[in-house]
Order: sequence, then C-alpha cells, then structure tokens
Amino acid sequence: MITLYGMKASGNCYKLQLLAEQLGLEYRWIEVDILHGESRTPGFLAKNANGRVPLLELEDGRCLPESNAILCYLAEGSRYLPGDGWLRAQTLQWLFFEQYSHEPYIAVARFIAKWLPAGHPRQAELPRLRERGHQALGVMEKHLAANDFFVASGDGVADIALYAYTHEAPVGGFDLAAYPAVRSWLQRIEAQPGFVPQRY
Amino acid sequence: MITLYGMKASGNCYKLQLLAEQLGLEYRWIEVDILHGESRTPGFLAKNANGRVPLLELEDGRCLPESNAILCYLAEGSRYLPGDGWLRAQTLQWLFFEQYSHEPYIAVARFIAKWLPAGHPRQAELPRLRERGHQALGVMEKHLAANDFFVASGDGVADIALYAYTHEAPVGGFDLAAYPAVRSWLQRIEAQPGFVPQRY
Repeated sequence: MITLYGMKASGNCYKLQLLAEQLGLEYRWIEVDILHGESRTPGFLAKNANGRVPLLELEDGRCLPESNAILCYLAEGSRYLPGDGWLRAQTLQWLFFEQYSHEPYIAVARFIAKWLPAGHPRQAELPRLRERGHQALGVMEKHLAANDFFVASGDGVADIALYAYTHEAPVGGFDLAAYPAVRSWLQRIEAQPGFVPQRY
Repeated sequence: MITLYGMKASGNCYKLQLLAEQLGLEYRWIEVDILHGESRTPGFLAKNANGRVPLLELEDGRCLPESNAILCYLAEGSRYLPGDGWLRAQTLQWLFFEQYSHEPYIAVARFIAKWLPAGHPRQAELPRLRERGHQALGVMEKHLAANDFFVASGDGVADIALYAYTHEAPVGGFDLAAYPAVRSWLQRIEAQPGFVPQRY
C-alpha cells in the first residue's frame, strides 16, 4: 500500500487526498505538522531533501515529492490524466500555472490571514499577494467562462490541483463574487463522485 | 514549422532554445520584449491569457504556455523525456521543484541584480531571495553529489530546466564555490551534443 505524508490543512496535500478518494486508492496517511518542523527532521529530510510535504512513499521505500508530480504519477492510466499528447500538455500547462502563478499568492495569503497572529509583519505582503492572486483568478475565469473544466477531456488532475486552494481563496481575503465561472466550476468539482471536502 | 515566442535573456525561454537545438528541431523564434509590455498586448493575450513567455505556437495556431509544459510536449518520444513511469515522475518532480523552489529565487535575484538600477527598492528583497536560492542549490548539490544528472536515464528536460537559471546564478549574487557537484554538472550539460550557450 502507498503512504502519503502530508498536513491536512495544506491545499497541496489535500490535492492527493482528493485524487486518491476519487480513484478509490487504498493509502496510508501520515500527518506531518510542518508548522512544528516535522518536515525538517533528519528522518524526513532523508526521504525529501527539500523538506516539504506532500510526499508519496511506495511500498518498496521509493519516495516522490512535489504535489503535482505525485498527482500525475498516481493518475497515470486513469481518466484524470489524458493519454493524448496535446491534452496531456494542457494538463501540465495548468499544473505549472497552479504552482507558479496561483499557489504562491492565493495559498500564501490564506496562510498569513489564517495562521499568523493579528499584526504580524508578514501582513504587509497581503496587498501584493492579493493583486497577483486576482490576476490568477482572472486567467481561470476567462478559461472557465468558455470551458467546463481546464482540459477538454473532462475533470482531471489540473482541476484537482487548482481546486485545492481556490475553494479556500476567500479565507485569504479573495472575494469570488467577480468570478461567476470559477464559482460554478467549484460546484462542478464538488459534485464529482468520490469528492471529499477538506477537513482540518 | 513550430513558432516559439520568447525573450532570449529569459532563462525560461532559453530552456526551449536548448531543447530545440539538442533535438535538432526546426523552429521560428519570435523575440518578445516583456520589459516593454510586448507580452501584455491584446494580440499576445489572445494567445496566452496569462501574458507570459515562452509560448509555443503550432502550425495550426494552437498555443501552449509554461516553459516546462512545452519542454515535455516537445521532448515526448525522445531520450530527453523517459517513457518509464517512475523516471517520468522524477522528471516532473524536478520540473516542479525548478518552478517552485528554484526559479522564484535564483531568477528573480538575477533580474533585480542585472536589470534594475542601483538603489532600486526591490534590492531589499535580495537577502531573502538569496537565502531561499541557496536552499535550492543545496538540494541540487546533495542530489548531484551522488548522480550525474537529475534522473537516472541521463540528461533530459529536468537538467535543461535547471541549467537555464543555475548557470546564471552568479549574476544574481550566488557564489557557486560551495557547490562543486553543481559546477561539475553545469560542465556536463555544456558538453552535450547540440548545446548552445545563452546569448542576449
């Protein structure tokens, strides 16, 4: 059986729970409290030198970090990762968009707003994070105004990756009122068989 | 023939030049000056709503953004992207590492140090960028001390993606003296058939 190391409050980790449940995979979940250094212990660094969760461990001990690489590995051969070259390229496009243009703003704003105490100096970052986060939401809105999902083959790992932090964007101060297509898409994802809400 | 839109001074764009030359692909290059807004014109935004380069355009007009998604698309079926599932997962792992843990620090430090005038307020970001960039170089050093390339199948798109900004890290103020394995790896990449230096 595979093991997933993660923190349930992290959207990057929740992605894997979402895919595993939708695929009906059996897995063991080991909760890692990154806020208390549990991903920086010598034992954990031996599994992932970059000291981050999530991390996939196979039964034979091989380890794979990076949430979106794990999504692709686990989804291979399923309808969540298309086999067609162009659809697969578009899947990767949105996965890289998520990690570069979306997560560093929307997830970080959520972290600062929810986990740091009022008056923390990092709150000074919020205006810039919100400006960039709204740019990412604008790109999503434009695409979803004309498409049900991110890739024409239907809901897949690109949707799972983008759902993970978009559904919590309001926690970071993003009002989704201006993004009706994004809000409809969130509901479509939540209606998928096997969908599990994020609980932490 | 494919068209690549990019700016030669950008490492993300140089990645595609490197792969195309190593594959011996015929391509048209259209230089886009992102410092003067050329990736934010209505015409360019119609090709990529996220307003970024590089961008691949196929002969039939279909477009694909995101440097690392383009690398995978162009390398499919070649030795630069392994077909084996585990090797491919490791390739993606390093491509996501590059975009999340490496580029936002090493490329941005290079940009601030090289393109912004002395005394620019963004220089205040440099200490944090350098701290995070050194963390990424440390992860690479640890891996390369025991491996010739990032994935066991040999040099591939993960190496190309990581080479793009690592070879210019000193421009951003990173001294590579403490990373002998990284320096040897840079030389191995530069010795590959079809290698072209970045010129801008």
